[in-house]
Amino acid sequence: MFKLKLPIIVLNFKTYVESTGLNALKLAKTCEKISRETGVSIAVAPQTADIYRVSSEVGIPVLAQHVDPIQPGANTGGTLMECVKEAGASGILINHSEKTLKISEIDFIISYARQLSMVTLACSNNINVSGAIAALNPDMIAVEPPELIGSGISVSKAKPEVVTGTVNFIKRINPSVIPLCGAGISSGEDVKAAVKLGTKGVLLASGVIKAKNPETALRSLAEAFT
Amino acid sequence: MFKLKLPIIVLNFKTYVESTGLNALKLAKTCEKISRETGVSIAVAPQTADIYRVSSEVGIPVLAQHVDPIQPGANTGGTLMECVKEAGASGILINHSEKTLKISEIDFIISYARQLSMVTLACSNNINVSGAIAALNPDMIAVEPPELIGSGISVSKAKPEVVTGTVNFIKRINPSVIPLCGAGISSGEDVKAAVKLGTKGVLLASGVIKAKNPETALRSLAEAFT
Amino acid sequence: MFKLKLPIIVLNFKTYVESTGLNALKLAKTCEKISRETGVSIAVAPQTADIYRVSSEVGIPVLAQHVDPIQPGANTGGTLMECVKEAGASGILINHSEKTLKISEIDFIISYARQLSMVTLACSNNINVSGAIAALNPDMIAVEPPELIGSGISVSKAKPEVVTGTVNFIKRINPSVIPLCGAGISSGEDVKAAVKLGTKGVLLASGVIKAKNPETALRSLAEAFT
Amino acid sequence: MFKLKLPIIVLNFKTYVESTGLNALKLAKTCEKISRETGVSIAVAPQTADIYRVSSEVGIPVLAQHVDPIQPGANTGGTLMECVKEAGASGILINHSEKTLKISEIDFIISYARQLSMVTLACSNNINVSGAIAALNPDMIAVEPPELIGSGISVSKAKPEVVTGTVNFIKRINPSVIPLCGAGISSGEDVKAAVKLGTKGVLLASGVIKAKNPETALRSLAEAFT
Repeated sequence: MFKLKLPIIVLNFKTYVESTGLNALKLAKTCEKISRETGVSIAVAPQTADIYRVSSEVGIPVLAQHVDPIQPGANTGGTLMECVKEAGASGILINHSEKTLKISEIDFIISYARQLSMVTLACSNNINVSGAIAALNPDMIAVEPPELIGSGISVSKAKPEVVTGTVNFIKRINPSVIPLCGAGISSGEDVKAAVKLGTKGVLLASGVIKAKNPETALRSLAEAFT
Repeated sequence: MFKLKLPIIVLNFKTYVESTGLNALKLAKTCEKISRETGVSIAVAPQTADIYRVSSEVGIPVLAQHVDPIQPGANTGGTLMECVKEAGASGILINHSEKTLKISEIDFIISYARQLSMVTLACSNNINVSGAIAALNPDMIAVEPPELIGSGISVSKAKPEVVTGTVNFIKRINPSVIPLCGAGISSGEDVKAAVKLGTKGVLLASGVIKAKNPETALRSLAEAFT
Repeated sequence: MFKLKLPIIVLNFKTYVESTGLNALKLAKTCEKISRETGVSIAVAPQTADIYRVSSEVGIPVLAQHVDPIQPGANTGGTLMECVKEAGASGILINHSEKTLKISEIDFIISYARQLSMVTLACSNNINVSGAIAALNPDMIAVEPPELIGSGISVSKAKPEVVTGTVNFIKRINPSVIPLCGAGISSGEDVKAAVKLGTKGVLLASGVIKAKNPETALRSLAEAFT
Repeated sequence: MFKLKLPIIVLNFKTYVESTGLNALKLAKTCEKISRETGVSIAVAPQTADIYRVSSEVGIPVLAQHVDPIQPGANTGGTLMECVKEAGASGILINHSEKTLKISEIDFIISYARQLSMVTLACSNNINVSGAIAALNPDMIAVEPPELIGSGISVSKAKPEVVTGTVNFIKRINPSVIPLCGAGISSGEDVKAAVKLGTKGVLLASGVIKAKNPETALRSLAEAFT
């Protein structure tokens, strides 16, 4: 079973122009460079159509941004786990607040991913949902209050009680699940606050992708873990 | 603006094991080979994660199986048209009965695809819906009665009135739209019947992908157009 | 077959507090009163749970705000056309921008409603979609640019070209369909502009429901038709 | 806070002809009669459009089959909790396998229902999902393996390990949640098996509604609890 090295920075490429196609490749290479320089684990989550290209050229973990709760068969337009795996993804991000899933779908995907030896990082919008997802046994859960996503106001500083509450609830329900946090993370201080609250890493997007200098932004985040 | 050469066979790879990853690549090469040998236009629609790999190695048109009605931005897990285009797709299949869309989404995607010079092939489930989609001005419409999809019973022979009705309704609403048909197509006879009913090509999947010998199946379909 | 008298004001109750439960009943009685006083046809679209109560006590047409594309059977939580009909609805509003539908669902619902002798009023978000829906043959289409809904800026004054374009496109595709318009309608002037552009009525919600005095607001709208 | 008396039989009316409109009313009266005769608690879940009519004429608890995760406002076609409550529902059935919900929606609905003093009965499709939903703190959870729903093969006899597993997992995650079971329940023996496995009641539909004699079927189920 593949395991991600902790602590970890997971960079969600979303569907920004700055992280699509050739730009996705460049950004992934920047992530790889910073990961090597700092020794901090960085995983990238490019769009499905970019997974093959990115994973063929970088040596850091690549996650899919979403998969559908399907098995091989007649599912036109579906995102099949086996397909993103063969394209080079070693794990999957699921239930992001921009692509939420039904509870039975989350359960299916987590079980199925485990059979395929793929890592699962499930997002939750609050403490309760973090606990509920923990019962479904993903590898990691990132709590992200939707109102802070893309806001530049970090969850670890603006809503520390949500992070602490998540860490504690997950521990009670299923201590094998690794807690992360996200939403508004953009600086090394945000990262330090997140670690202090008990998380093992951060999930972010615009804080790096929309930064004037993504490489600089990413380096300062990574250095906060060292 | 990119134009597909007519008549055309569009092979929908769905999410079958036989058309995922390396198998997708092999199947696309078979399609290319048959297209060269017979001179008949063949387009392939692999899974999103396979578009880059397939389009990098074959010279025939590649379509995405689905795109989301989104523009670049914060759309985690979304399938962005710009991304599949940069990965090598020259067109998109939309509203397949396994991935149906809202009417306003179909409208958005068709307009947006045109701005990006991508070809649109919209599926419809019956005569009425074919006419409705024609008003939205896609490049092509493939009528596919859902109950015949994957059945091995071809629409062109079992429900010729649906094909004829579609051809006529499309012509009345928007004569610039090219009619295709699909569902159950697996033999050269099915193709000949489809052409006789006024379509300019066929959309199919299992008839080739699940055939004992896909190359043989595809050749007999292509030769029926010559 | 039930027919609505034209011109018509259709009041969508949405899920506002002011139009829920007992408030829905009071509002429907106000609509009935104004309709009698002015002679102008007014239909109300209360929430599903209020249809029976409202239709039992008022004599004006009652529409459901939505129905699901289902037939009697095992559809827990579904909104069945036969059920809203027996509860007293004589028609249905479908594809409102707050409850959009797939194109095949719109087609199914319109056909099924006709079998049940229920009137269909389908919403569209722009000219193209109006034309597409016209091909599906509903009784009425109300064009409502989503960005103007609830804005207080009326479509008939701010985007007259959308109304005119819809009227013309519907006429070309299917002249038996009656064009209405909606979004931002709140005054008699908005109504007069709508009529002048070729529509046979208006669909509105907050312009009356959120008015300081809904009765006064409704009367001034109705009088604009006389 | 409203509390349902245990043990309980919850009869889901779905959208069957036999439980729509006037038939819903008759069936609810039969349920009331059997409940009085046997002293066993029976709750009914009619379609949304029938809630007012049913709750106005019977004295047993009425549940909605579904509500949307919304608050009062502009939600055309939405099923508002305040509206079904005012229509007479004292609780809600959610996440039935025929109307599944996103995990964040289940969380929202349960919290919101508690504020409105409405009872929540959430359905789950397996042991894992039962545990996950328990973390969201509904009043009751009914585990229903989808493949047995409507099958006539009862979960309590065909898959006792799913019922026991659910009872145990719920107890570990949140002992205040009451476990029920459903799917295929049609006889008194099925009920006795369900009770023996640790549940406090059953959720069923076709076993009564599609029975030759619903009253007889219901009586034998109720008597099994006594």
